[in-house]
Amino acid sequence: MRVRKRNGAEEMLAAHPEIVIAEPTAHKGRWHEVFGNNQPIQIEIGMGKGRFISGMAKQNPTINYIGIDMQVSVVSHALDKALAAEVDNLKLLHVDGSALTEYFAESEVDQIYLNFSDPWPKKRHIKRRLTSPDFLAVDESILKPKGEIHFKTDNQGLFEYSLASFSQYGMTLKQVWLDLHHSDFSGNVMTEYEEKFSGKGQPIYRVEAQFADKTKKVS
Amino acid sequence: MRVRKRNGAEEMLAAHPEIVIAEPTAHKGRWHEVFGNNQPIQIEIGMGKGRFISGMAKQNPTINYIGIDMQVSVVSHALDKALAAEVDNLKLLHVDGSALTEYFAESEVDQIYLNFSDPWPKKRHIKRRLTSPDFLAVDESILKPKGEIHFKTDNQGLFEYSLASFSQYGMTLKQVWLDLHHSDFSGNVMTEYEEKFSGKGQPIYRVEAQFADKTKKVS
Repeated sequence: MRVRKRNGAEEMLAAHPEIVIAEPTAHKGRWHEVFGNNQPIQIEIGMGKGRFISGMAKQNPTINYIGIDMQVSVVSHALDKALAAEVDNLKLLHVDGSALTEYFAESEVDQIYLNFSDPWPKKRHIKRRLTSPDFLAVDESILKPKGEIHFKTDNQGLFEYSLASFSQYGMTLKQVWLDLHHSDFSGNVMTEYEEKFSGKGQPIYRVEAQFADKTKKVS
Repeated sequence: MRVRKRNGAEEMLAAHPEIVIAEPTAHKGRWHEVFGNNQPIQIEIGMGKGRFISGMAKQNPTINYIGIDMQVSVVSHALDKALAAEVDNLKLLHVDGSALTEYFAESEVDQIYLNFSDPWPKKRHIKRRLTSPDFLAVDESILKPKGEIHFKTDNQGLFEYSLASFSQYGMTLKQVWLDLHHSDFSGNVMTEYEEKFSGKGQPIYRVEAQFADKTKKVS
């Protein structure tokens, strides 16, 4: 998500070290200490303005959430939402989502959310899609065995690509929605983008994909 | 596909034993003898009035096709199309598609087509869907290792179910189309149903799903 540059964004982040974790590498393998409990940890890569991750944290107090985005202005908006939510199970990281293994230990994360990720429609940019194999390899390494990615998008091309990519990586599709907002799925927390564009006729696609048990191997 | 009962349909089939194979069990494991060559064999389960399978046979003379349907009137219409196509790489079977192992030996079939299969939308009828696990097990047994199912439908619920069912069976999704008629897929042969309803706005979904190599096992 691209947003307008926000003056003072860096200072806003620095003013709330209890939410925006300044040196995430220092907590690798010990995020439970940051939260002060042993609840499962779910992360959103590319959280945008934070409506989704704040809403999830509010909805599910027994889960710890970490929202990640590399744009400082974006994280500052997410911080506004996190403060307004008044929850203690939400932290934010202002880092590059492609370097996740620097911040999380093997199997430390319970679940990953990808919402309306950049579709990178050109073939020569496939490797930049967050559902392409190199990113999935990083996701798998920080996820517990049989960990899941929950992915939403309104981009048909990205969804077609991602279903095949998940499957070809060896992941299992647990459930697929081809029109989320006209389904019986309950508890959907919308992103800013989803709220804005879902009324315009394009269906929202969703999939829950599960990694294989990495402790087992194919002979 | 349900069609009106056609008087004389049985007699029509009997009059063309060179196309409608009367005792398919007799040819189990020896279909290459029926065709008189060693071309790969592809089958369509539930061929309806035969537009697709006749079109494929005409389009691809180096592949042998077998169309299967359990309704005699349906097969009689498919016979009309097969005769009109004037091809020698197409045979038809008037049998129940769920008993495929009676007609085909292990690994005898190269590829399976499912087109606009009955969606059986009620939960209690899931086991009747041709993409449910029991049917997939039969398909896998007659398909060569890493054989594929190519599936088209306009039914959203059936497609959602089928993607997950293929994946959970251990199949790999090679490619997914969420709007086939507005994609760059070339060589699509339409079924009667597809031709009739695709203009009405509902997208046509398509997937190519591949079985795992059954000669290998997970440890």
